[in-house]
Amino acid sequence: MIHISKLVVRSYECDSYSHVNNAVYLNYLEYARMAFLKDNGFDYKKFVSLGYAIIVVRIAIDYKLSAVLYDELTIETQPVKRRKASGTFLQRILKDGNLVAEAEVTWAVLNAQGRPSPVPQEFEIPALNPAN
Amino acid sequence: MIHISKLVVRSYECDSYSHVNNAVYLNYLEYARMAFLKDNGFDYKKFVSLGYAIIVVRIAIDYKLSAVLYDELTIETQPVKRRKASGTFLQRILKDGNLVAEAEVTWAVLNAQGRPSPVPQEFEIPALNPAN
Amino acid sequence: MIHISKLVVRSYECDSYSHVNNAVYLNYLEYARMAFLKDNGFDYKKFVSLGYAIIVVRIAIDYKLSAVLYDELTIETQPVKRRKASGTFLQRILKDGNLVAEAEVTWAVLNAQGRPSPVPQEFEIPALNPAN
Amino acid sequence: MIHISKLVVRSYECDSYSHVNNAVYLNYLEYARMAFLKDNGFDYKKFVSLGYAIIVVRIAIDYKLSAVLYDELTIETQPVKRRKASGTFLQRILKDGNLVAEAEVTWAVLNAQGRPSPVPQEFEIPALNPAN
Repeated sequence: MIHISKLVVRSYECDSYSHVNNAVYLNYLEYARMAFLKDNGFDYKKFVSLGYAIIVVRIAIDYKLSAVLYDELTIETQPVKRRKASGTFLQRILKDGNLVAEAEVTWAVLNAQGRPSPVPQEFEIPALNPAN
Repeated sequence: MIHISKLVVRSYECDSYSHVNNAVYLNYLEYARMAFLKDNGFDYKKFVSLGYAIIVVRIAIDYKLSAVLYDELTIETQPVKRRKASGTFLQRILKDGNLVAEAEVTWAVLNAQGRPSPVPQEFEIPALNPAN
Repeated sequence: MIHISKLVVRSYECDSYSHVNNAVYLNYLEYARMAFLKDNGFDYKKFVSLGYAIIVVRIAIDYKLSAVLYDELTIETQPVKRRKASGTFLQRILKDGNLVAEAEVTWAVLNAQGRPSPVPQEFEIPALNPAN
Repeated sequence: MIHISKLVVRSYECDSYSHVNNAVYLNYLEYARMAFLKDNGFDYKKFVSLGYAIIVVRIAIDYKLSAVLYDELTIETQPVKRRKASGTFLQRILKDGNLVAEAEVTWAVLNAQGRPSPVPQEFEIPALNPAN
């Protein structure tokens, strides 16, 4: 139910406090959402080739702990809301079981004309919907 | 009352949709907050040299419009909440008067021991407090 | 003859030594080359819309001095070699007249099929050629 | 003799051509050099805590092929020159055995006063020297 990604903090991701820069966490979250889609059978390259896009419309992220060089991070991704043309993931970044950051990320689909669109039937996957 | 920063979108800030990447907006907001502090007389380099840090504890950002190469962006920054050791900015990114993104950013101060701390008296500036 | 760009170092461009990260200089150089093209009348958006691309095939960069937060950098860009389908820029990054980094950057043109191509006639500009 | 690192291209590393941005390759190379040091027993955190720094003084990189989302890259790192206070790595980035980019990276050591320094005896490792 909860998708797990793992990554290790790289040197160029750290800022002048030697901590992972705030914006970099958004990269990590994007990385984990892409892995979520891939591991759940969502054909992203085909989706894009048909002119569709998944965009992020809102991110609310709470920073709890700093991460530093070589920290091994676990990113949990799970759907918590779903509408026809959009949805929300809860994503949690952890190190050694402690919460580094927690985010709610709301996505939406645009069609080739750049307008909001339901997820096309062939790309609909159960993993986008919250468990009951 | 509202601080204004301006910047122009650079090529390397755009992703494979040719849009400014979501994480890059957090860089823009950080840039604008640093300019806010500087223009309001906050001595950031001294602050850091004394071991203090301003950290971001929460960002809630709504993405409204895409920005692309060479867009001239205006970033409005204003304080909307204030507590002794923390506060919240409302930041709005605009192009041609249209809202590109809007964010609430909550900051806190850490002392040299890494613990929450009030803003030290010599660094207290009126601009950190919301207008009445 | 020598094109000048200016920029100021931003907080999120600094690494854990508080210096501008090595890779960020390549962004600065790209920024300056884009400004060079724009200021010399090269219609980059049209060029891309026709399927052409300017790619970088080689960069040789010497790092001389560190740049830090708020440094005001000047970037000089000038063509030093030219062939039909490629060319080389010399780019120098300076602060207060001192050399921060110096790079030779060799570019080439690809057509819509991804193959090396001469600069199309309508995009040929004198500024791409070294002065005699 | 040749150190191997592996990584997979992430979405936020791609530019508006959907290719890995040129500057990002320098991040990849830094990642591989850090892995090289770590895997060869160089205690980087201690080194930094004593005030030393390894800086890059020159990079000459040739770009051969584009890398795109999800490409699995192999980075080979090997020393090719060595002097007391500096040295040069040859680094090659490959996908499926094909050369994506090749770089010569020259490093130097600075002491706590920011001056060029030999590698301190306790941090000297054979891996920094080219094989005969």
